[in-house]
Amino acid sequence: MNGVLAPVLTPFDGDLAPDAGRFIRHCRWLLAQGCSALAVFGTTSEANSLSVDEREQLLGALLEAGIEPAQLLPGTGCCALTDTVRLTRLAARSGCAGVLMLPPFYYKGISEDGVFRSYAEVIERVPESRIYLYHIPQLSQVPITLKLIERLLARYGRTIAGIKDSSGDFANTRAMLDAFPGFEVFSGSEKFLLATLRGGGAGCITATANLNPAEIVRAFRGWQTQEAEALQARIDRVRAIFEQQPLMPGLKEALAHFSGDDGFRALRPPLTELAPAQRAALVAALTAAKFSLG
Amino acid sequence: MNGVLAPVLTPFDGDLAPDAGRFIRHCRWLLAQGCSALAVFGTTSEANSLSVDEREQLLGALLEAGIEPAQLLPGTGCCALTDTVRLTRLAARSGCAGVLMLPPFYYKGISEDGVFRSYAEVIERVPESRIYLYHIPQLSQVPITLKLIERLLARYGRTIAGIKDSSGDFANTRAMLDAFPGFEVFSGSEKFLLATLRGGGAGCITATANLNPAEIVRAFRGWQTQEAEALQARIDRVRAIFEQQPLMPGLKEALAHFSGDDGFRALRPPLTELAPAQRAALVAALTAAKFSLG
Repeated sequence: MNGVLAPVLTPFDGDLAPDAGRFIRHCRWLLAQGCSALAVFGTTSEANSLSVDEREQLLGALLEAGIEPAQLLPGTGCCALTDTVRLTRLAARSGCAGVLMLPPFYYKGISEDGVFRSYAEVIERVPESRIYLYHIPQLSQVPITLKLIERLLARYGRTIAGIKDSSGDFANTRAMLDAFPGFEVFSGSEKFLLATLRGGGAGCITATANLNPAEIVRAFRGWQTQEAEALQARIDRVRAIFEQQPLMPGLKEALAHFSGDDGFRALRPPLTELAPAQRAALVAALTAAKFSLG
Repeated sequence: MNGVLAPVLTPFDGDLAPDAGRFIRHCRWLLAQGCSALAVFGTTSEANSLSVDEREQLLGALLEAGIEPAQLLPGTGCCALTDTVRLTRLAARSGCAGVLMLPPFYYKGISEDGVFRSYAEVIERVPESRIYLYHIPQLSQVPITLKLIERLLARYGRTIAGIKDSSGDFANTRAMLDAFPGFEVFSGSEKFLLATLRGGGAGCITATANLNPAEIVRAFRGWQTQEAEALQARIDRVRAIFEQQPLMPGLKEALAHFSGDDGFRALRPPLTELAPAQRAALVAALTAAKFSLG
């Protein structure tokens, strides 16, 4: 697995129920733009605002719509062991490329042994799984340390296929790349795409791939060319615009605005839509940058 | 609602499945010891390590065993709106005294408006609910501010019945007591029981009530007597012993040890059992303090 993956935005209807139709449409568009796979049910997808039933139904809808399971990397890490097992088993049985797994994130100050045991229990119950660890300490508050990765690889080998590093700290990504050759390391932001690839990494799984997939894919494909730095600079410019306001509300606002489909705007609480002034500023900045949906 | 409530420990069997038999037995014992109600599915209950199905089954088992719903205050706050609605609706329809509701806790840096909207959406869908807010910022990272309580009370009145303040900061509890007369304020620790009651509060909902219910209930009942300070000092001494190691593993260890039933010891990951040295130190300290299960 490599390339650019989108943690797909989850559209909600007027009752805040998941909107499978718009979800499928957006997934198809992302693949058509060159995303190598879809990391559905990620942080950007508001997956933790969905019940397990809702995730199952959306995954079923995607498969029924003909999306290839080999192009799916669903998020399955929940607080409850039994929820994580249920989603991971469904993904494995459906033939998904793998799963992206948060550690349980309610309890804080968890020992490394507790995190190890969390992953181990899932693997013992779903030995056919193929797991990408998900390191996003600013939200989970439960870090995936180098020592933990080492223990998991020693015990479970290639069942632990790789990691998404969303720490925002490239020194950490670099340390993983150096420590575990062959381990598939994805940056959680396209800001580090070139640096990650030059270090032997696999690509990026990035929120903004929901809006700017074609340019990020172009940067991925051209990373060994003379244009690499220029391509990186282009995607950095768009990323910087999205970092000016809360990320998920901004992405949904931009998708609604530039697609002309207001049905993409709603968020489930606790997330809230952008304030009018934030909306205006975001749209103005993207328009000034000649942004379009490709 | 007032008095001493226990956030009931959830026993797990050898497969880490909830053990309904031991759970019911422990609930009956807590009520017999004088707990006024059971805050099942709290933090101490490892509720966030249970699926919604598992919580529903355990609640059903309690009711079937003849526990009065008026003595139940189940925790229902999940990350996903639809999970919170499902559990809150079940509690209301079952006649539970109320529910103890965490805010959604995955996303961080959430606006007060986002937290308000989270509670509001649940109330709009389950208008018959009776909600106790759950302020435990060190775990949820999503605080229940005075301003938020004020907004919720203004909009939903007595549907917002009270709060459990587990911040560990009595100045915060005091501010709530002063700001909202008639609002049922429970301390999250018996350390502040006397201070809370003297300030007009309702009592405490405390982890250690799982082990030391009779003494905490005695302190509650005697708070206006000359013995009040001495009773508070006694429960403080036991509390201090449990604060010497991780709280939930320590409580489960002590319950297993002093009841002679090893079936109470298991925890679901990411929590882990005490190390042998911690076990020994805990049992020695409790024994030296002449601790018993009453």
